[in-house]
Amino acid sequence: MSDSNLPPGDWPEMQPGWVWLVGAGPGDPGLLTLHALNALRQADVIVHDALVAPALLDWANPAAEVIDMGKRGGKVSPTQTTISRDLVALARAGKRVLRLKGGDPFVFGRGGEEAQTLVQHDVPIRIVPGISAGIGGLAYAGIPVTHRDVNASLTFVTGHDAKGRAPQLDWPAIARGSAVIVIYMGMRNLAEISAKLMGAGRHADEPVAIVQSASTPDQRVLETTLAACAADAEAADIGAPAIVCVGQAALMRRALDWQAMLAGEAPRDPDPLGLGPAEDR
Amino acid sequence: MSDSNLPPGDWPEMQPGWVWLVGAGPGDPGLLTLHALNALRQADVIVHDALVAPALLDWANPAAEVIDMGKRGGKVSPTQTTISRDLVALARAGKRVLRLKGGDPFVFGRGGEEAQTLVQHDVPIRIVPGISAGIGGLAYAGIPVTHRDVNASLTFVTGHDAKGRAPQLDWPAIARGSAVIVIYMGMRNLAEISAKLMGAGRHADEPVAIVQSASTPDQRVLETTLAACAADAEAADIGAPAIVCVGQAALMRRALDWQAMLAGEAPRDPDPLGLGPAEDR
Repeated sequence: MSDSNLPPGDWPEMQPGWVWLVGAGPGDPGLLTLHALNALRQADVIVHDALVAPALLDWANPAAEVIDMGKRGGKVSPTQTTISRDLVALARAGKRVLRLKGGDPFVFGRGGEEAQTLVQHDVPIRIVPGISAGIGGLAYAGIPVTHRDVNASLTFVTGHDAKGRAPQLDWPAIARGSAVIVIYMGMRNLAEISAKLMGAGRHADEPVAIVQSASTPDQRVLETTLAACAADAEAADIGAPAIVCVGQAALMRRALDWQAMLAGEAPRDPDPLGLGPAEDR
Repeated sequence: MSDSNLPPGDWPEMQPGWVWLVGAGPGDPGLLTLHALNALRQADVIVHDALVAPALLDWANPAAEVIDMGKRGGKVSPTQTTISRDLVALARAGKRVLRLKGGDPFVFGRGGEEAQTLVQHDVPIRIVPGISAGIGGLAYAGIPVTHRDVNASLTFVTGHDAKGRAPQLDWPAIARGSAVIVIYMGMRNLAEISAKLMGAGRHADEPVAIVQSASTPDQRVLETTLAACAADAEAADIGAPAIVCVGQAALMRRALDWQAMLAGEAPRDPDPLGLGPAEDR
């Protein structure tokens, strides 16, 4: 495809009847992968969710049918069962189907279930990973999810289960297992989750960063603490879509907020953890 | 840049004296992001590590100086201090510097320390996240790191600390906190780590997948168990670079191994966890 805007290479062709489950990343179109761009240019049908940036669709094959599964004409969102069955039907109709999901398809995105449904209906698939908000979205706030003096482990949790409640987890173990905890879709149950973590020994003053609409022009970052985060988020009107980072890593934003640097601002504190020169560690 | 192979958009310009810390993804050049490609086309100097696929460098500005920090002329790898100081010196010399790291720069890659060193020397930075092997590399083996009936939490651990030993962690808490545990750089200490997890109650028969050179043409996947993984890896000569997935998610490969589908093979088992139709869950 000479008009594909892809660098030279042996780019895979989408075949009729296949579904590619593709991660679109957290929001910035520049975080799309080359495989995802390749899929956008070839797909007959693009089925996307609400978190996919509209700008990405400008790069699609102009003849492609675009189906917004996030909201359809103001109606309620389709169920997962509906989405999965629609994907099967499109593939069986011989379409080249791009299922485009915000973030990464296999990180709290139900992509595993969509993939499995397709396979159970004999539809072949390809998976194209994407940048997950819990890593890349936090990076856009200047927060490294791992940092040698902070953590050798990292836990991601989803903030709600299939019924919208905080998931049934061993919260004391999660609190003790990782110095950095990243909560996806956590805004609705943030008061409950932060209380569980404090009840398991995490300190009330522990730093928390909440990144709303990470990596988009609407990105907002709230710097708060474990005890105050739910109330502060409500007061600041910070809500979904948002990613929550609990732990000392959140403080690193004072040094590494590169979006502020692009705007000409100096870092607030080059050593927010008080550990001395980073090059000697 | 008309020759940039980027789709239409307002692509950021690298400025002299800046360092962009960029994730190159797990190996497949198609998992590079558009921002990373944009940086490759503009950088005066590219400083990369051993895990960056050589094919990516074909897309670089032909005039760029390429510095391989992974191995230099058969000598030992440079220390982190040397790398960080070299990046500072290159930026101070007015170069547009691309620091290209395998995976994501902020996931067990010491990118946070490099970024902080640069900031502490008044060098401005930009961060471009990449696909981390613990998510995207496993996806190339058909393994979803989250799956609704498997886990609502996910823990990443590094398999060695600064001295090469298994890190000092609350292993019992890690064992209990997340049904899926992903170990980066875990091959050297795999016997010790698997023993710690079993000692904390994880079952000896629990599924484990080890993915070597994930997403590259050399990818190899070992399907094993927690009790057998260290010995099986040695017997199969599976070693670094590898990512280890502990938990039921590893079994999903039997359904979702899309690389086998590309090769014309049917899934071995569309319901490896015995949960019935995925669309109804």
